[in-house]
Amino acid sequence: MELLHSLQQLFKRFPGIGERQAMRFAYFLATSDERYIKELIDTVTSVRKNVRRCSECFALSEKIEGGKCPICNNPKIDRATLLVVEKDADRERFIASRSYSGRYFVLGGLAPAIEKEVASHIRIFELSNLVKNEGTLSEIILGLSATPDGERTEALIISLLSEKIATNGIKISILGKGLSTGTEIEYSDKDTLLNALKSRTNK
Amino acid sequence: MELLHSLQQLFKRFPGIGERQAMRFAYFLATSDERYIKELIDTVTSVRKNVRRCSECFALSEKIEGGKCPICNNPKIDRATLLVVEKDADRERFIASRSYSGRYFVLGGLAPAIEKEVASHIRIFELSNLVKNEGTLSEIILGLSATPDGERTEALIISLLSEKIATNGIKISILGKGLSTGTEIEYSDKDTLLNALKSRTNK
Amino acid sequence: MELLHSLQQLFKRFPGIGERQAMRFAYFLATSDERYIKELIDTVTSVRKNVRRCSECFALSEKIEGGKCPICNNPKIDRATLLVVEKDADRERFIASRSYSGRYFVLGGLAPAIEKEVASHIRIFELSNLVKNEGTLSEIILGLSATPDGERTEALIISLLSEKIATNGIKISILGKGLSTGTEIEYSDKDTLLNALKSRTNK
Amino acid sequence: MELLHSLQQLFKRFPGIGERQAMRFAYFLATSDERYIKELIDTVTSVRKNVRRCSECFALSEKIEGGKCPICNNPKIDRATLLVVEKDADRERFIASRSYSGRYFVLGGLAPAIEKEVASHIRIFELSNLVKNEGTLSEIILGLSATPDGERTEALIISLLSEKIATNGIKISILGKGLSTGTEIEYSDKDTLLNALKSRTNK
Repeated sequence: MELLHSLQQLFKRFPGIGERQAMRFAYFLATSDERYIKELIDTVTSVRKNVRRCSECFALSEKIEGGKCPICNNPKIDRATLLVVEKDADRERFIASRSYSGRYFVLGGLAPAIEKEVASHIRIFELSNLVKNEGTLSEIILGLSATPDGERTEALIISLLSEKIATNGIKISILGKGLSTGTEIEYSDKDTLLNALKSRTNK
Repeated sequence: MELLHSLQQLFKRFPGIGERQAMRFAYFLATSDERYIKELIDTVTSVRKNVRRCSECFALSEKIEGGKCPICNNPKIDRATLLVVEKDADRERFIASRSYSGRYFVLGGLAPAIEKEVASHIRIFELSNLVKNEGTLSEIILGLSATPDGERTEALIISLLSEKIATNGIKISILGKGLSTGTEIEYSDKDTLLNALKSRTNK
Repeated sequence: MELLHSLQQLFKRFPGIGERQAMRFAYFLATSDERYIKELIDTVTSVRKNVRRCSECFALSEKIEGGKCPICNNPKIDRATLLVVEKDADRERFIASRSYSGRYFVLGGLAPAIEKEVASHIRIFELSNLVKNEGTLSEIILGLSATPDGERTEALIISLLSEKIATNGIKISILGKGLSTGTEIEYSDKDTLLNALKSRTNK
Repeated sequence: MELLHSLQQLFKRFPGIGERQAMRFAYFLATSDERYIKELIDTVTSVRKNVRRCSECFALSEKIEGGKCPICNNPKIDRATLLVVEKDADRERFIASRSYSGRYFVLGGLAPAIEKEVASHIRIFELSNLVKNEGTLSEIILGLSATPDGERTEALIISLLSEKIATNGIKISILGKGLSTGTEIEYSDKDTLLNALKSRTNK
């Protein structure tokens, strides 16, 4: 079963896929109908041919025109606001939430613990350049996860950009902390309760 | 094994305990050392004798003096602020978070879906009376879980108290919504992202 | 993002894959290196071209010669014994366990609850024909899961084959029931304990 | 809240109970009705007073007469067969399965990895004495879990008793290995498949 095992090995590289599920994928493709296989290969090929990174926000897009994605090309978006996200999937979540109408910037990851490796892990130079060269920007929102890695990345970006931001009169903000949907008080940690009390809103 | 099964039945009423674990508890007590059993029975008896509800905030306490718990009796607490919580365990979480220095009020539950059953489920009359009769109160914080039941209870309390609050110049607030500790953007729902963006804070 | 979403839809048909993980696969393929993509598409194509079902045992194989898989073509296997399995993955588990040296038969599923639909779900006619036409067979082992569906399939095959089996002097057997690796007595059901006691072995 | 926290600490010793659930138990007892508390304390007291270990099989029982439990006192049980189990809960499972009509022996645990500590962990001397002194015994069944600890205990008992068993013409057996209820072939380990094939039964 060399071929099926080769296919299993390739599927094992898919995010979150182990040995057993990789083999199920191999059997699935070996036995699914010809039309589906053709469509899958065609779509992968199409994605590879058409999906590229925007030269401004670094998001993946299949509608790059003049090097830019539809959001960066959209004259109606609020160009004064930049939402910095970790990855494309996070950007998709914000778009799906319909709660934001400005620009995005995809970091490409979170800051590693070793600071001198930062530039090889996330687009920190690119973000820094964008801030330096753009006269239109008035606020940068760090839209990062409320995890230790997310918070280290927040702190790092704030410290690296602080000078440029001060010079250019740009605000930098982080996402509000408090109760997320479904949070129960009994199972909340101290920071969440502290943040929820601090950011309480009048009714 | 009638006795052990009777004990199992009694343990099945403990919160979150099923048949199997109840039996393990029965065996555990049948075979643990005499001193532990004595201590357990003595402590339960002591708790029953000494722990009572505060007549002001309805929290359980073993140090009720003049009908009131140590927090309600404490002259140093901020008597102008009242944090309304669902249950004693939630009050304990806020105390442990050291993020609040005012008074508490234990509702004793969350509002049921059928509105006319509210008064038999939560201390809504007692809360209402407290608001009416207290000249010292300037803010009521609803410290409820960010769940559908919590939000229904929030809405209900706000609507029931609105008149009295307006008359007495009392603010009513709810906990801040946003990212709770550990929240990842990729797995966040729309409301959480919307709230997190709305309540973003400058750095 | 039409293309990425099309790819997501195609990945959603993979066994056990939901919306979210399907999107992660799409992003993964959109950004992984060109060599990996080429290898993946080539391997899928190769699998489709080379992997076929054995005309005798219906297992998938990439080394079909004269219509048969390497096991069916192997002159050294014990052709008197036939192990009936639900699916290719189960056959692989038995092969990997190195505990069996006879032939296999892949049913292609388990019997549905509605008996008249059986023939469209599993290869019951093919199994029946094989039993009728083969003089070499002396034992059929039903290697099915110890689940309600597996047991219904067992009962059905036994009832459908019983006549032919009697005529041809073929034994039919089912897998031994007892404690599987890791089974704890405290959490075992009655049938497992009953079977384990019945099938106890002398030391 | 010293008393409630003392009660929490005592509940934390219950099997499988952590900090949070121990506190919920404390609140539960502090607020449940008086009759329930009385019944709980009375039943615990009763269990302590009446439940004792059988001097023959070491099972817990509330009906010890002449030092023995109802099963050991029952003239109708098959005294030739002895089922050795790890703990009382396992004995209960076998009784509930109605699949065994002989005597039991409760080891009181599983053998630790360090052999010289065995006698302080399990009733190996008591089992050995019972085997030596009983003329009626014809089979010892080791009814232990199919886990590494269970198998080590099996091997140890077999090696320690082998001489006495040979002298007295007693058989020693272990529970049958195979598929336990619910086992799926695809997720089975090699030993389980090997055992299931070896112990297959004719239909």
